[in-house]
Amino acid sequence: MSKSAPTLEDVARVAGVSRATVSRVVNGTRNVDPHLQETVRNAIEQTGYSPNRAARSLVTRRTGTVALVISGAGGGSDVFTDPFFGRVTAGVVDFLRPHSVHPVLMLADSEPARTEVVEFLRQGSADGALLVTTHPADPLPARLMAAGVPSVLYARPGTPTPVSYVDMDHRAGGRLAADHLVASGRTEIVTISGPLDVLASQDRLAGFRDAMARHGFPYVPTAEGGFTAQSGEAAMTRLLTEHPDLDGVFAANDLMAQAAVFVVQAHGLRVPDDVAVVGFDDSAPALACRPQLTTVRQPVERMAAAMAELLLADLEEPGQRPRSVIFEPELVVRASA
Amino acid sequence: MSKSAPTLEDVARVAGVSRATVSRVVNGTRNVDPHLQETVRNAIEQTGYSPNRAARSLVTRRTGTVALVISGAGGGSDVFTDPFFGRVTAGVVDFLRPHSVHPVLMLADSEPARTEVVEFLRQGSADGALLVTTHPADPLPARLMAAGVPSVLYARPGTPTPVSYVDMDHRAGGRLAADHLVASGRTEIVTISGPLDVLASQDRLAGFRDAMARHGFPYVPTAEGGFTAQSGEAAMTRLLTEHPDLDGVFAANDLMAQAAVFVVQAHGLRVPDDVAVVGFDDSAPALACRPQLTTVRQPVERMAAAMAELLLADLEEPGQRPRSVIFEPELVVRASA
Repeated sequence: MSKSAPTLEDVARVAGVSRATVSRVVNGTRNVDPHLQETVRNAIEQTGYSPNRAARSLVTRRTGTVALVISGAGGGSDVFTDPFFGRVTAGVVDFLRPHSVHPVLMLADSEPARTEVVEFLRQGSADGALLVTTHPADPLPARLMAAGVPSVLYARPGTPTPVSYVDMDHRAGGRLAADHLVASGRTEIVTISGPLDVLASQDRLAGFRDAMARHGFPYVPTAEGGFTAQSGEAAMTRLLTEHPDLDGVFAANDLMAQAAVFVVQAHGLRVPDDVAVVGFDDSAPALACRPQLTTVRQPVERMAAAMAELLLADLEEPGQRPRSVIFEPELVVRASA
Repeated sequence: MSKSAPTLEDVARVAGVSRATVSRVVNGTRNVDPHLQETVRNAIEQTGYSPNRAARSLVTRRTGTVALVISGAGGGSDVFTDPFFGRVTAGVVDFLRPHSVHPVLMLADSEPARTEVVEFLRQGSADGALLVTTHPADPLPARLMAAGVPSVLYARPGTPTPVSYVDMDHRAGGRLAADHLVASGRTEIVTISGPLDVLASQDRLAGFRDAMARHGFPYVPTAEGGFTAQSGEAAMTRLLTEHPDLDGVFAANDLMAQAAVFVVQAHGLRVPDDVAVVGFDDSAPALACRPQLTTVRQPVERMAAAMAELLLADLEEPGQRPRSVIFEPELVVRASA
């Protein structure tokens, strides 16, 4: 290797490809053949070529990163230990990796944090935003739009906004749970909802109640939970006290369903013989639970990947109309119901 | 607001601070009073001032991001659904946030992926690397050093390398587990180790065996696990078959300990009455388990924060000698042992 700094031409010569191809790989242009990409990367490694990313991004206006923003109220970094977050991250990373794009993790759980996110993106530190927000009143989607930041949401925004998003049919998920509990002969059915200021919780509950009514059950005792194990335990304890003869429970996520199973068992009742329990998500706690949970599967990884795909498409061809991709739930029958 | 692009001076005027202070905030200099930072950020928001981050990073040579690299062999994005990863992320984000630094998530589970990480950092797309690697033969630490990338590791490197790291005394953790099982009167004690190509697993096992020997037990039946629930189940099943009279188990992480509890219970034995189970980590499965797990706490969040702190210190004053910070384990006594 010569002492002078290696150039793009050196890389092209070593790789046996054109200067234009090297440039496309270096600039993260998509649709470059993966084998070619690897050849070029090996040549870059071999020559020691090092384009200055900052200088380059002045030209391409692309950083090779997108912000993965966890928004909504409170909670802070605890959100990262929720199994849902790990699945979102896995889906996003799996989709972005082959495109050499990497997510910058940001929390937007307070006004200063939201300002920082908007500032970071407006300054061009990342090319766009993947926004996971749970609260309909979250001002962040509108602010990102106002700042002209390409953005895609996980879950539809609380107020109609011309922004792309992925979501799932949470109502249909609630219906699947109700149909299954009724079909298995349960008649004293209760439900633990998610926090009712979250659209997904409202939808799961509405779909569940709607299907129960169609099955001839006009009223379903309900306790509101907060998607945590602790809140599920409190809700189940209350429901058991008020309705000691209950024989079926739908919990709006697996963490709460697992907690419900523990409470039922601690009362000396058997799952599913005495009480059937259906969860929602099909995340790690569903498999860790004994008995393993029958649950409504939310395809989080696929939804997160679709969110990343929408964003990259928007970066590739800016100015397209907003798009939505809605996923269907699926009942996964295991041992708890 | 005037039509022309707002300047640093406009921000300084609105904030009522000097131009230098605005510049320090904008450039992410540390040690700026948080209240002052917020005042300046509000003024930036109000004026609509938008420094070009790319142009700025040409001057400051700082991007305001660091790479959080999950390295080692195989596994892919599954690692993100491991409770350990969520805790690392939480610790890193909590420390970096007040400094307006954000982690870029990268997986380095293959040779092309490692090359991409090194390239990304050498190009200055992030200011340094936080590297979580489990395999002693991982070539990434040495390559990052060779590329001159400021790096800090979670866990000591497999081969002596002049690099900063945080770690914990895993041997002492193994000893705590042995002492507790023996003190509670158990005599037929077995252990489920982590994967034995991981230093932390070797250390936990060595510390455990060492303490058992000091208590007069020269031989401990051992089954190797892979830190997953599935591997814990297989290991416990084998141990129970080969040693049906066992009365104590130390599993090298909580996921495997939880699986061990399930297997023991499925054999009609009670935990802890018939078999005491001690885990390691004190992560979510420890609390989700019934009975809740007695476990050796690894302060992952604090260790991750310390890793981030070492990196920022190195970025602030480059060229310091490598440093290490070693954390002590702690026995958390719950119901399983």
